[in-house]
Amino acid sequence: MKKMPHIARNPAEAREFLSLHVRTRSSVGLVPTMGFLHEGHLSLVRRAKEENDICVVSIFVNPLQFAPAEDLAAYPRDMERDLELLSAEDVHLVYSPSPGAMYLPDRSTLITENSLSRCLCGAARPGHFDGVCTVVLKLFSVIAPDRAYFGEKDYQQLQVIKRMARDLDLPVEITGCPIIRERDGLALSSRNIYLGEKERAEALVLSRSLDAAEELVRGGETDVTRILDVVRDVISACPSVALEYAEIRGADDLAPLDIMNKRAVCALAARVGRARLIDNRVLERRD
Amino acid sequence: MKKMPHIARNPAEAREFLSLHVRTRSSVGLVPTMGFLHEGHLSLVRRAKEENDICVVSIFVNPLQFAPAEDLAAYPRDMERDLELLSAEDVHLVYSPSPGAMYLPDRSTLITENSLSRCLCGAARPGHFDGVCTVVLKLFSVIAPDRAYFGEKDYQQLQVIKRMARDLDLPVEITGCPIIRERDGLALSSRNIYLGEKERAEALVLSRSLDAAEELVRGGETDVTRILDVVRDVISACPSVALEYAEIRGADDLAPLDIMNKRAVCALAARVGRARLIDNRVLERRD
Repeated sequence: MKKMPHIARNPAEAREFLSLHVRTRSSVGLVPTMGFLHEGHLSLVRRAKEENDICVVSIFVNPLQFAPAEDLAAYPRDMERDLELLSAEDVHLVYSPSPGAMYLPDRSTLITENSLSRCLCGAARPGHFDGVCTVVLKLFSVIAPDRAYFGEKDYQQLQVIKRMARDLDLPVEITGCPIIRERDGLALSSRNIYLGEKERAEALVLSRSLDAAEELVRGGETDVTRILDVVRDVISACPSVALEYAEIRGADDLAPLDIMNKRAVCALAARVGRARLIDNRVLERRD
Repeated sequence: MKKMPHIARNPAEAREFLSLHVRTRSSVGLVPTMGFLHEGHLSLVRRAKEENDICVVSIFVNPLQFAPAEDLAAYPRDMERDLELLSAEDVHLVYSPSPGAMYLPDRSTLITENSLSRCLCGAARPGHFDGVCTVVLKLFSVIAPDRAYFGEKDYQQLQVIKRMARDLDLPVEITGCPIIRERDGLALSSRNIYLGEKERAEALVLSRSLDAAEELVRGGETDVTRILDVVRDVISACPSVALEYAEIRGADDLAPLDIMNKRAVCALAARVGRARLIDNRVLERRD
């Protein structure tokens, strides 16, 4: 029987727990989440447990990263189940502030990232990554982690946060962890719960299109346009999957790419029914 | 004979010194400066020494807070003299990074404060306080101070930084320290060196206009417009002092004020020759 994690509802409670439990040379790992946890999150938690003395998971559905027309209110929540899952992983602290404990009504400070965050999802969701950066910095301020863990499913988010940490000299190591997929290839996402049975089946074209891209690159294809044509062809076979973007960009700087002359990422976003899904694959040429 | 402070030229050097010298329960005080130190800075240093086990002074002329047309290149520098002054105060660490160690060419992350920073100096110097917030957060990231000390001469800066620290849950106490003045009333500023002898004498109208405002409020005047009329009259007696703004605003939120119904600040900025000077006075009614 594992122990229930301690729960902190505001910065002071989190700091009090940490001041009691973090010793001079002990390390702290943080897994920031919006809750409704799945095996993707749990893989981050296990990595954080392995690499640190203290493991903190934050659960906070961050209003600042949702635009008014987005799914903030509908975003799935199940704190009871989340806490059971985190108990089983032997997490030490769950930091789960209320929106009021996180943001004062007259808050006026924002972190903005003006390069990596502008393309891909950032183009369709203006302000989204400012909200992400701001909440992540606040989590870092309260938890003071040595390491923080983010899933590669949100590939752009991972790169933006790495950039923020570098630019602001944050004393934290940002670790990206591999996408966890269902057996049939669907990338795990809390938003998969929005999918009906038929939509769930159709959403598989996303990961299949990335398989196709990977195969082309392995076969020696270097022309980004030709690779993306195939990706879009695979997806367009399912008319109920409305592609928002499919792009290939530099894996670290997210700069546009015409030729596969360096490590790249193929990233895509699509609407499937009510769900906006994203997926990606890092593409490396065999030399 | 006091000991020369240790000098760190980049984040790694500063962290290394601190990891060796900061013990579990010892406290760190930081005084961020742009160098060319005067008694105003030294009053902050003494306060930081009094209240903390370790005293760190940063010296960095921050390009990010200067607009292209401003005095970045001309800003006075004298590192040798600064280090002598700080030796005499027994400062432990001087953090003085090069611009290249502070900002990478492809940096893309900025802190913005969108309320307090928009008025007063922020209106005339767009981007200035974004630059201030960004560099101060970076200093906090590297030094991890328990307390940081700022002069009330830069009154708006102090309020903006307090707001940033609050909004971002930064684990640092922001302390404002009183303006230090010459015997005749001129507020100390590194930029006073720009003043010729005649300009130096004329710049005294700034503090005199604040004396007049204070006297009016003590005498029971509550009408902000009438107080500001007197302030502007005093300053306009010196035609070589070009007033940029004279305003009375709420002392904490910097919101506009018509009636002196709460603690307020009278803040002003003026050009005197090559120098852009600022001064202010907190005004409190006697009840």
